[in-house]
Amino acid sequence: MLQVLSLDDAKDKLLTFAQKKFVFSERVPLFSCCGRSLAQDIYSEEDLPAFDRSAVDGFAVASGDTFGASAAQPSLLRLTGEVKMGERARAPVESGTCATVWTGGEIPHGADAMVMLEEAEHLGGMVAVEHATAPGRHVVFHGDDVKKGQLLLRAGTCLGAREIGLLAALGITEISVNRRLRVGVLSTGDELIDPAQTPVGGQIRDSNGIMLTLACQETGADAAFFGRVPDDEAVLLAELSRAAGECDLLLLSGGSSAGAKDAAYRCLIKLGEPLFHGIALKPGKPTLAGRIGETIVVGLPGHPAAAYLVFHALVRPLIAALKSETLVERTVRVRLTQAVPSNDGREELLPVCAFGEEAEPVAIKSGLISPLTRANGYIRIPRDTEGLPKGAAVDAILF
Amino acid sequence: MLQVLSLDDAKDKLLTFAQKKFVFSERVPLFSCCGRSLAQDIYSEEDLPAFDRSAVDGFAVASGDTFGASAAQPSLLRLTGEVKMGERARAPVESGTCATVWTGGEIPHGADAMVMLEEAEHLGGMVAVEHATAPGRHVVFHGDDVKKGQLLLRAGTCLGAREIGLLAALGITEISVNRRLRVGVLSTGDELIDPAQTPVGGQIRDSNGIMLTLACQETGADAAFFGRVPDDEAVLLAELSRAAGECDLLLLSGGSSAGAKDAAYRCLIKLGEPLFHGIALKPGKPTLAGRIGETIVVGLPGHPAAAYLVFHALVRPLIAALKSETLVERTVRVRLTQAVPSNDGREELLPVCAFGEEAEPVAIKSGLISPLTRANGYIRIPRDTEGLPKGAAVDAILF
Repeated sequence: MLQVLSLDDAKDKLLTFAQKKFVFSERVPLFSCCGRSLAQDIYSEEDLPAFDRSAVDGFAVASGDTFGASAAQPSLLRLTGEVKMGERARAPVESGTCATVWTGGEIPHGADAMVMLEEAEHLGGMVAVEHATAPGRHVVFHGDDVKKGQLLLRAGTCLGAREIGLLAALGITEISVNRRLRVGVLSTGDELIDPAQTPVGGQIRDSNGIMLTLACQETGADAAFFGRVPDDEAVLLAELSRAAGECDLLLLSGGSSAGAKDAAYRCLIKLGEPLFHGIALKPGKPTLAGRIGETIVVGLPGHPAAAYLVFHALVRPLIAALKSETLVERTVRVRLTQAVPSNDGREELLPVCAFGEEAEPVAIKSGLISPLTRANGYIRIPRDTEGLPKGAAVDAILF
Repeated sequence: MLQVLSLDDAKDKLLTFAQKKFVFSERVPLFSCCGRSLAQDIYSEEDLPAFDRSAVDGFAVASGDTFGASAAQPSLLRLTGEVKMGERARAPVESGTCATVWTGGEIPHGADAMVMLEEAEHLGGMVAVEHATAPGRHVVFHGDDVKKGQLLLRAGTCLGAREIGLLAALGITEISVNRRLRVGVLSTGDELIDPAQTPVGGQIRDSNGIMLTLACQETGADAAFFGRVPDDEAVLLAELSRAAGECDLLLLSGGSSAGAKDAAYRCLIKLGEPLFHGIALKPGKPTLAGRIGETIVVGLPGHPAAAYLVFHALVRPLIAALKSETLVERTVRVRLTQAVPSNDGREELLPVCAFGEEAEPVAIKSGLISPLTRANGYIRIPRDTEGLPKGAAVDAILF
């Protein structure tokens, strides 16, 4: 028998194992990269902006020409022309002159500051400036945003709209991202039927299959539901073996009765190598893990809330590791609206509904699923805690 | 000229207008509902669980039979059989007897509590119980999770894995969700080129087009990039008119120079009705909005950071409203690691990088894009605030 691990030890064990896995990368056009993770560090091959750029609509000036300017004694500058958007600023700004430049337009040579349209008087080819303008005022200089050779984004960064916008600005339109992780989900249990069917006797509709498949898809993984398997070791053995060949990560749901748990465990021993069997966690005790070939297998509890919480606390970090992605937990510091009773010597994951600066504990009686939709996160209560009083400050990890 | 509004007034104006819009719903199979919003309230047509269910592996007993049981004087119960998973519990448990039931299995009539396997001694057809068991112990009663007729999920709820799991458990496998919102993005500006091209002169690569399109997709909208339009009023008029016919919401990016701003505004007057022109916001001043037929048009600033912040603060709530979806902002209470200087009489959106209980302000000089990837949210600084000291407690809204 393998040892019962703490949640953190179980996670460490899985992540260590995941690091050994080779993950394929592929080159993908920028428009298809949202939600994917970078397979390589990205450095800029250019300066951004590529020219000194105006941040306002106004007049490009040599700041020295405006020193000492006042309402009584404005600097009078001759307007020599306009820099059209997208065009090169051809004529330099010489002392005593200025040029119209629009927001985003190029500042001509000789100019080092902008005077805003509304801060100057424009009369018959002359511009009157009534305030001194400091060098660099309203100018974004060449390379201010990004310098050539600068590290833009690290390997493992999950790409969203902002990161992709930055890459587009630098002309990086195809990038190497980690291959989408293939995840399979198998539900086990004689009592399970398809949600579209009507239960007879002690049958129940399999909600974990679809819930876990979609939860994996929400992480950006390429997840598929592989179906339901009865509590029959020979069938489970065949299905596990087949399913493991088709994915990088295989989630087993259910089999939370002692017999079924052992069946999955025995199958893991026969087909590969178990990593752990049981976690000192409430809920989540019957969680197990192992590998079949290069595929990691995680057996989750059959109770929907337990399955979802363990998915969030253990499988999500594993998926991120397998995708070589940096997982950023969304954690909120909140105060409990109610006291929480002491736990039973195991670390506890307590679902909460966090709102504003508070979080309300959501009690989930064993096997219930509806309370899960009233929670938006959970707190971790360490094993040595004798309950938490009302008002206790806790970190809620948001789903 | 329309009045310059505050951010909240601009948002209210857009949301009020959005409420009038008719949004189509469609029936979709459960597996395709992730990220979609419910078009109707969902009530349960069944009790869940449909039978009294065991929460453990053990023996179903009549709790009265165990009263007074102790190690010295255990209750001895005759084991009459086993309830197999998924099957009906046929034989009732009569006084003095018990039946094996696995986790999730049906509790036979006559029994009202479970004794866990590990808390009983099983010897030759007899089970010795050494502790009294309370009625209801380890039992999930019929209807404990969901009662027939109960409101499960409200119209507007965004469906994730947990909500869909609940629907599956109740046999609701096809539901009415709001049609995906069609969003179009048009970039305007003579200086803009495709990110794959190399800029010449004062040209810059259009990063806002792809960034805003993907940001809309991240909200679950069906967003498409409609291309780039030069600062030519006749062309803009034609493109706006064509694009408005193809989407529910049209975002214009750029045109942040005074002339271009006015062009978009003039087009709105010609083609439909402007709603506002300018927001008292830093950054985001040149934001404008209006409608062309039933399509809402929002003109965002050309600066990437300004465009993204206004997208988040104004367009995201609008998209949620158009999808009849309840938008849940992710807000974190944090302390500033640095003082923030006073603002200039306008409300300010300040990007921050929130980590743990702290948030570091991310200064974004006008027109820069790279700092945006170092922020993970922003704070709102009201217009009447004279700066914020280091350590000030603020609410960061996470991207």
